[in-house]
Amino acid sequence: MLFMVEMTVNVPHDIDKETFDALKATEKARAETLQRAGKWRHLWRVAGRYANVSIFDVADAGELHDIMTSLPLYPFMDVRVTALCRHPSAIDAD
Amino acid sequence: MLFMVEMTVNVPHDIDKETFDALKATEKARAETLQRAGKWRHLWRVAGRYANVSIFDVADAGELHDIMTSLPLYPFMDVRVTALCRHPSAIDAD
Amino acid sequence: MLFMVEMTVNVPHDIDKETFDALKATEKARAETLQRAGKWRHLWRVAGRYANVSIFDVADAGELHDIMTSLPLYPFMDVRVTALCRHPSAIDAD
Amino acid sequence: MLFMVEMTVNVPHDIDKETFDALKATEKARAETLQRAGKWRHLWRVAGRYANVSIFDVADAGELHDIMTSLPLYPFMDVRVTALCRHPSAIDAD
Amino acid sequence: MLFMVEMTVNVPHDIDKETFDALKATEKARAETLQRAGKWRHLWRVAGRYANVSIFDVADAGELHDIMTSLPLYPFMDVRVTALCRHPSAIDAD
Amino acid sequence: MLFMVEMTVNVPHDIDKETFDALKATEKARAETLQRAGKWRHLWRVAGRYANVSIFDVADAGELHDIMTSLPLYPFMDVRVTALCRHPSAIDAD
Amino acid sequence: MLFMVEMTVNVPHDIDKETFDALKATEKARAETLQRAGKWRHLWRVAGRYANVSIFDVADAGELHDIMTSLPLYPFMDVRVTALCRHPSAIDAD
Amino acid sequence: MLFMVEMTVNVPHDIDKETFDALKATEKARAETLQRAGKWRHLWRVAGRYANVSIFDVADAGELHDIMTSLPLYPFMDVRVTALCRHPSAIDAD
Amino acid sequence: MLFMVEMTVNVPHDIDKETFDALKATEKARAETLQRAGKWRHLWRVAGRYANVSIFDVADAGELHDIMTSLPLYPFMDVRVTALCRHPSAIDAD
Amino acid sequence: MLFMVEMTVNVPHDIDKETFDALKATEKARAETLQRAGKWRHLWRVAGRYANVSIFDVADAGELHDIMTSLPLYPFMDVRVTALCRHPSAIDAD
Repeated sequence: MLFMVEMTVNVPHDIDKETFDALKATEKARAETLQRAGKWRHLWRVAGRYANVSIFDVADAGELHDIMTSLPLYPFMDVRVTALCRHPSAIDAD
Repeated sequence: MLFMVEMTVNVPHDIDKETFDALKATEKARAETLQRAGKWRHLWRVAGRYANVSIFDVADAGELHDIMTSLPLYPFMDVRVTALCRHPSAIDAD
Repeated sequence: MLFMVEMTVNVPHDIDKETFDALKATEKARAETLQRAGKWRHLWRVAGRYANVSIFDVADAGELHDIMTSLPLYPFMDVRVTALCRHPSAIDAD
Repeated sequence: MLFMVEMTVNVPHDIDKETFDALKATEKARAETLQRAGKWRHLWRVAGRYANVSIFDVADAGELHDIMTSLPLYPFMDVRVTALCRHPSAIDAD
Repeated sequence: MLFMVEMTVNVPHDIDKETFDALKATEKARAETLQRAGKWRHLWRVAGRYANVSIFDVADAGELHDIMTSLPLYPFMDVRVTALCRHPSAIDAD
Repeated sequence: MLFMVEMTVNVPHDIDKETFDALKATEKARAETLQRAGKWRHLWRVAGRYANVSIFDVADAGELHDIMTSLPLYPFMDVRVTALCRHPSAIDAD
Repeated sequence: MLFMVEMTVNVPHDIDKETFDALKATEKARAETLQRAGKWRHLWRVAGRYANVSIFDVADAGELHDIMTSLPLYPFMDVRVTALCRHPSAIDAD
Repeated sequence: MLFMVEMTVNVPHDIDKETFDALKATEKARAETLQRAGKWRHLWRVAGRYANVSIFDVADAGELHDIMTSLPLYPFMDVRVTALCRHPSAIDAD
Repeated sequence: MLFMVEMTVNVPHDIDKETFDALKATEKARAETLQRAGKWRHLWRVAGRYANVSIFDVADAGELHDIMTSLPLYPFMDVRVTALCRHPSAIDAD
Repeated sequence: MLFMVEMTVNVPHDIDKETFDALKATEKARAETLQRAGKWRHLWRVAGRYANVSIFDVADAGELHDIMTSLPLYPFMDVRVTALCRHPSAIDAD
């Protein structure tokens, strides 16, 4: 099942910079693993903002939730989830 | 350049049904043509709503505008445009 | 998969009353069929408003979309969809 | 009487992790007790967010308030309450 | 049980004036009956707007819904419902 | 003159608990005094939230402002004020 | 007592132009009368919008409501009312 | 003085197409005249929407208002006005 | 030129009380000076909130900006600016 | 390609003043460099607020993102991006 997830990262101004950079590095590794596994199908940067638009392909909403809460930056995110399905005018399934 | 476009279609309750069905048929044909041309890269239905999430791959914002205003259902749409770019953690360009 | 769907019905003030009453009767029959089929798991009225809170149990978002657009009152609805999953503190699955 | 309650938990980034984990454990125990007592009828996780959708079955709004303020995580919650009643098309009372 | 109900009346500009005036007269009679019955406990006009703030004292949310939908102007109203309960600092129950 | 005042109390998570409890006790005493003086006509708890709906009966907006800013919890409140007047369908003045 | 009232006029596109122009002329005369009577203390146009910011000086909210509903364009207005009082740093009362 | 004005044009679905096209042609001529006069300094299309972002250079807010209300499509516009001034980091005045 | 400025002051709960009181005293003196100079034409308290509605009469938006940023409490304010002009139905210029 | 970017700077009240002033000086230098390079085409102050309206002329959304995240004050900004294109009634390209 496909979900669009919009993530906005809010960085507290008084957070320890090294700790946060370490989280970002782990986040990047985790994002790449999930993309290679075919779970995180698309990942785009929103221009000018610390935010992304993502498409996930998961078994169900439970798997989506497990993936999202496993992300190192999840505690700093505002998240908007939209359930998607096949569009009758789409020529491809993805 | 990539843009996410979210379209919501508002159908006036007193519109002539046949006229609107004809517009929908033309819209579907136009959407398929634009997908085949590689301009309308992704098209998903938002579950439960007369709305879609789309990704366009165009030369610039001008081309996006020309495509959007050429859609037969454009006069009935609420449109939200988000400019996207490559995410540093994305393993693919699309 | 479970979805919460919140539906608000907007009745145009100049609609033909008999036509709308016929739609409502058909809607009621359809709602009862879907409940008996186990697809429309819960259906509550929002007190004081022409609106409901519903829980659907469907195979995926595509089935949810097909059900929603099959409702006779769908063209008059504002719809908000929320994907749900099992809560770790829930003692039952439903 | 039935109420839908939507709870969103906001975790301050500088809170002591052990203290918060202890609160979560107590919250889970309290939620299970209230479900077994038939007060907290349904409890679903909102996919991708630290939030839930719940249905409470209580004597009145006063009992709902007492339950909510007794939750260990209540001080960290944004809460939206919606009063529900029997829907004329519902085939079951719950 | 107590509910605050905020009602805003939207009058379509092309409605027949006589029909609407008749509805208003019936609404006034109905509001007075419900106040005398102790169901509609308080009724205040919002200064400068075609809107009111009301307090209802009803058995449950079902009775509130039946009252609201029985109002002649209900089809023209935006309605916001808030469930109330006894405040620990209140010196009276009403 | 009557005003509806909706107060929502936001408790900072890092505030000293004893200090805040002392403020709450003073607030309760002040609320009772104002109710006995006939200024704070109604005080209801919003079910499930640290918020209240209140009706004040004061000489003018200046007196309302003085009362509000004299409340010990005022610095922690979001406040919404609505000026009320007699409703033509109300059978009582209060 | 002073109130700020913000009025936005919405002109339905299918209204009869002559009827509306007559309403506007009556509105202008009424506004001038109320200003001369000292009730409508200030009246400013919001630049670029069919809207105004006004200050009313009235006995109470009831008088404000009577004035507002007596305006010929009132049925076409969105209205926002804010109760004002003397500011401790103001050097004049008006 | 500089103002940013954001205009969104809402076309009623039941308007006469020829009448509207005539308005659009007059609007275009008027926009070009105002640009040549140096009043309408910049005019950009918002990609994908019937909307523009404009910068006006006028004597004061009164002149801005006169210009806006002189536009043939003004009755169909939602308008947002923002007063601008010289930025301390700007290297040019325009 | 006239501007309406709405200022809401947000006091951080952990700010040093003496420091803030000193800022308030300076703010009051500055507000009185600007009123005497005819720049800050009107200053009203919003009843029940730490907010004001003000009318400024300045040469242009640049002067307004310089005044606003010179206020000692400016760093704690949410500010909304609205450009005003003469209303055709106003009998006075102020 | 042209983008309108609206930036609002939020200064935490407990930030070290000297550190922030140093960031502002670097920001100013960076803004001037980008303007001289023709990338930051216009930069206006929003009157009365710590905010600006800017027009960027960049190769694509990726370049815009790199520029924005290179700004020293970027971590303190709320950012709104709008993709622009040539307006058919514009007499100049800029």
